Amino acid sequence: MRFCPFSQRVHLILDAKGIPHHKIYIDLIDKPEWYKDYSPLGKVPALQLTSVKEQPTLVESLIITEYLDEQYPELRLFPTDTLQKAQDKILIERFAPVVSAVYPVLTCNPSAPTDALTNFETALDVFEQELARRGSPYFAGQTIGIVDYMIWPWFERFPSLKLTTEQKYELKPERFGLLLKWRELVSQNEAVGKTALDAQLHADFQSSKRLGKPQYDIAFRA
Amino acid sequence: MRFCPFSQRVHLILDAKGIPHHKIYIDLIDKPEWYKDYSPLGKVPALQLTSVKEQPTLVESLIITEYLDEQYPELRLFPTDTLQKAQDKILIERFAPVVSAVYPVLTCNPSAPTDALTNFETALDVFEQELARRGSPYFAGQTIGIVDYMIWPWFERFPSLKLTTEQKYELKPERFGLLLKWRELVSQNEAVGKTALDAQLHADFQSSKRLGKPQYDIAFRA
Repeated sequence: MRFCPFSQRVHLILDAKGIPHHKIYIDLIDKPEWYKDYSPLGKVPALQLTSVKEQPTLVESLIITEYLDEQYPELRLFPTDTLQKAQDKILIERFAPVVSAVYPVLTCNPSAPTDALTNFETALDVFEQELARRGSPYFAGQTIGIVDYMIWPWFERFPSLKLTTEQKYELKPERFGLLLKWRELVSQNEAVGKTALDAQLHADFQSSKRLGKPQYDIAFRA
Repeated sequence: MRFCPFSQRVHLILDAKGIPHHKIYIDLIDKPEWYKDYSPLGKVPALQLTSVKEQPTLVESLIITEYLDEQYPELRLFPTDTLQKAQDKILIERFAPVVSAVYPVLTCNPSAPTDALTNFETALDVFEQELARRGSPYFAGQTIGIVDYMIWPWFERFPSLKLTTEQKYELKPERFGLLLKWRELVSQNEAVGKTALDAQLHADFQSSKRLGKPQYDIAFRA
């Protein structure tokens, strides 16, 4: 699904590593019958390994990502150090409270809790602090790495809040200064550019979804 | 927490690999102040690496498990093949619907959905079928491995359903024959024996929890 942040994670890794692939987008509401043969629970993304014997399909964005990183190790995205790798995975897990707090606002849910954005900022503080603690432009260091790519899809979507919320919400530079610099840097990454959709398009999609008829295809209107 | 299946996963791996460790059990309702210094979200398990510089703490049972498997590779529990490893991780993820379906019944929740056990069995069918497909006594093959250990804690708890449900629920041999044979085999594993609590104790704990005062300490009454 072209607007799915979890699918985007996998697209980013495929592009970052230059792995030849073919994308098929599906309608998540009106799922094609054949899709459950690839993803039994109907979740996206699913990656079929067409050059592997029996052409198995993998699901779960993080599992796919780690598989691709091990299988195509020319550009290593996960740390090779076992402990650092575990700590990066824990940091990626710590993004779940950010997502769950902001999700109702991001999806223009009229019954979003009134403290949703407050909780979102509290959860995001962890990442501002972690960038400060690591003292590097990217979470991975001097170059982009796995944490950067795995949390990016939501940062691409946050600017749509300015267009969809009454208070024209934006991340405040005095609180999220390092993350805003990081966002600027990451947005210039080549793989990120290849999968990018702009804030207006994300806002339009969420509006269509709230109205009960998600317009998946507007991503392709060019 | 002595009754936490996620903590038990880590205990199993520590015991299986013979890694020296020290356990501290906490009261999940009345959490000690110091615990959030180790697990910021208050989740169990947390594993502090006391012999590593700065003594970092890891959280999330699967991340800890994979770390331990890479750090102590003498007895490999994850497949070394990248694809098989990814597929085993996906299978472990597929256990989540089993857990979420059975959880309200297992915890004696009076408002458990009436179709909870039906949904539980449907989710569990995947594992019966997968054992058949793999054609081996363990999910890992001829010896115990990561999938076996990761799903075991819930199989230890299922027999408590016979004691706590009105219909004295048990897994039916005609539907779950391979899994029941597997359960018998795994229950004889040494690491499994070290962390084992019997069905009556699990039932007693759940009853105490339902009454609003979880008796964590009954695990140590012996």
